[in-house]
Amino acid sequence: MRQIPKTLVEQARALSDGTCTATDLARHALEKASEHKNLNAFVALDPNTVLRQAAASDERRARNELRGSVDGLPIAVKDNYLTQDYPTTACSNALPTEPAGVDATIVANLRAAGAVIFGKTNMHEWAFGATNTTSSIGATRNPRNLDHITGGSSGGSAAAVAAGIVGAALGSDTGGSVRIPASACGVYGFKPTYGRASRHGVLPLSWSLDAPGPIASGLDDIALLLPYFLGADPQDASTAQAKSFRSIAAPEKPKVLHLSGLGLERSDEVDAAVRYKLGQADASVTDASLPDMRSFFAAWEAILHVEATSYHEALLSRSPNAFSCVTRAHLEAGKLITGQEVMHAQKLRSRFIDLLLNDLDEWDALALPTLPVSAPRHGDDRQKFGGRDVTTQDSMTWFCWPGNLAGLPCVTLPVGDSTNGLPIGMMLMGKPGKDEVLLDIARRFDKGR
Amino acid sequence: MRQIPKTLVEQARALSDGTCTATDLARHALEKASEHKNLNAFVALDPNTVLRQAAASDERRARNELRGSVDGLPIAVKDNYLTQDYPTTACSNALPTEPAGVDATIVANLRAAGAVIFGKTNMHEWAFGATNTTSSIGATRNPRNLDHITGGSSGGSAAAVAAGIVGAALGSDTGGSVRIPASACGVYGFKPTYGRASRHGVLPLSWSLDAPGPIASGLDDIALLLPYFLGADPQDASTAQAKSFRSIAAPEKPKVLHLSGLGLERSDEVDAAVRYKLGQADASVTDASLPDMRSFFAAWEAILHVEATSYHEALLSRSPNAFSCVTRAHLEAGKLITGQEVMHAQKLRSRFIDLLLNDLDEWDALALPTLPVSAPRHGDDRQKFGGRDVTTQDSMTWFCWPGNLAGLPCVTLPVGDSTNGLPIGMMLMGKPGKDEVLLDIARRFDKGR
Repeated sequence: MRQIPKTLVEQARALSDGTCTATDLARHALEKASEHKNLNAFVALDPNTVLRQAAASDERRARNELRGSVDGLPIAVKDNYLTQDYPTTACSNALPTEPAGVDATIVANLRAAGAVIFGKTNMHEWAFGATNTTSSIGATRNPRNLDHITGGSSGGSAAAVAAGIVGAALGSDTGGSVRIPASACGVYGFKPTYGRASRHGVLPLSWSLDAPGPIASGLDDIALLLPYFLGADPQDASTAQAKSFRSIAAPEKPKVLHLSGLGLERSDEVDAAVRYKLGQADASVTDASLPDMRSFFAAWEAILHVEATSYHEALLSRSPNAFSCVTRAHLEAGKLITGQEVMHAQKLRSRFIDLLLNDLDEWDALALPTLPVSAPRHGDDRQKFGGRDVTTQDSMTWFCWPGNLAGLPCVTLPVGDSTNGLPIGMMLMGKPGKDEVLLDIARRFDKGR
Repeated sequence: MRQIPKTLVEQARALSDGTCTATDLARHALEKASEHKNLNAFVALDPNTVLRQAAASDERRARNELRGSVDGLPIAVKDNYLTQDYPTTACSNALPTEPAGVDATIVANLRAAGAVIFGKTNMHEWAFGATNTTSSIGATRNPRNLDHITGGSSGGSAAAVAAGIVGAALGSDTGGSVRIPASACGVYGFKPTYGRASRHGVLPLSWSLDAPGPIASGLDDIALLLPYFLGADPQDASTAQAKSFRSIAAPEKPKVLHLSGLGLERSDEVDAAVRYKLGQADASVTDASLPDMRSFFAAWEAILHVEATSYHEALLSRSPNAFSCVTRAHLEAGKLITGQEVMHAQKLRSRFIDLLLNDLDEWDALALPTLPVSAPRHGDDRQKFGGRDVTTQDSMTWFCWPGNLAGLPCVTLPVGDSTNGLPIGMMLMGKPGKDEVLLDIARRFDKGR
């Protein structure tokens, strides 16, 4: 077998050039998955199911009946997306393990376009955590250094892409769950605008914060996948106004605000890597200071907890022991939130959106590191950076929750390595609905890699 | 002084024909207000302020410098709209009584177009009730029979229009507060789609349910006023997507569903009057039964209470005695609602919207009586109808809360009189954003009056 390219876009080219077949791609991915078993990236992966889909794609290609731009490309799926051919457990012990028999809308879109659905990836239990250390099958390990975590909750998806098993994988993001592991593992992740991508068939964590998104080997791969994510789905009312994907160029010299402030501290090396990268493109980059983030963070936490508890209420009262004790504690805590606290959180949320969209100087993108530190070690419970000492969980969502609280599209791209050899990621956030513009701005900064 | 016409449209014509002046209109309105002092319709009305505005309009007309379609027309304003020239008290004892110095957006729009702002009307304290019997200045009285209530919370506005003091008045509607008194007093009321009319400067009751709307002497008056209501206002984020008013014709033979079901009972005479009216237009009218409304009603009540308590929280803890004991009891009750109950109410709300918009057969308008009974007597605490025995408060919101819970545009028009000589109203609800279509459908049923 020839050299198999790593990105989706290169793989698609190799298929159309005839330099490899979908079966070659699938076999290679299966071999890489075996080789990297110690990452614990997959909760379910059936070689026969994979090879059958690949063979079907090769037959379509031979008959000149290709279905879409991803025909024959292996794509892994986070274990909270329903899939017809695999069980969906959200890496909890609470759910039945039979295959669901139906695909989530995004999986169905990709399958209809010929993608090879490449197993289900490990995730933080119920997506309720950002470390990927709590899971029914155990923690994921970072391909760049096995002693370090991947971050989560889409940790298996990021590990599978970073290890070169698949070119891309599906994730979901409620407070950074796409961006955190993508950044920690040195790959790319995109969270669409809230309500632009269907969550139908994706097990919810918090319905007013959740967004599904791709993790991939490059921004071109994300551009290839976004058409399967964006657009109205009658089965998800939040997408009623959603526009489909279309390429849109960003302004010639986009205005980027690099945010800082209380609650947005970061380590020196992360700050330096992001500042260096921000200086490398033809963009107007200025610093902007936000007010104290801590009350807005508390609002995000309250909304997350009260919605997650509401979703899990019936299962929690029926089978409390089906949850890990840490997830169960979160859900029990959610019960204690009062209606007035919910109202207060909603007001803070409105205020926060107003702050980002109206109070700041004009901007095309907001820039932040994706994480304040590089991927923590397994077993390290706290992280110190920029004068702060916080739990590892809080350090993972440090810069990511604002994108969910405000519903903005967000992208993370790798911008360098830390002194200990682990990746550093930079995040850009766009205006609501301007996902394509954001992607184009990210491309300007990604040049020259 | 000649005969002064009653509707805004006729008054506008009289002004342009030169058969009367704005000063004539203002004087006539002031005389009628004096004559009908026993209605208790006004909480603030200053003749000099009124006459000054009218004189200014007459001067503009003489100079041929008219500002808009309402120039010179007296329009009364519910006492929860901020107005530069009158205090705004929401008929509570909690608020300072100095003029605010600023106009609510809708008042500003009307003032800019030359309307004569004709005092502030009595309302149910803080709009938190549908009878208009709780108010810092006492109950309003129904112009058709002083022994009966007007309903509320925009009771003063409806009484002022029904008594012929003004052609139209401003109201606000959280669970029927425009439609209830309009129906009970035999005039017209319109609640726009949620988020299509600015609430900026209108004291909130429940921010996810509130909508401002006009009460008027006819549908043409409502058409005259809606352009000053509808459209985006940067000061009310909920109007970000709001379209301005433009006339749109309804389908030639609109499909109307007449709703019934558990929780939608009505008295026989109300049912007969509505059914008769529904048969009088060229429309396809069919009966449709809804599932048990009671859990959806409870969701509306929970959202109303939790939001109202949140808005009033600071004032309630600072000056609890500034509220009447009944309003204070409501606000204290709102504190007891849990976060999980709020989530449950939000899910029921989504389900309810889905039910009306997706589960029913295709429709252009939904029809219901506006009230299940004609205006109750002062002092009657309970109402019996269609096998139900409920509080007068609940009977007033009986058919109206669904329009708020689902955010639909709604209109009420008088369709006859009860055996005791009090008006009966019919309500039509439209699709979200289709306010103009709804108005046109209402016109079809209003012909031949």
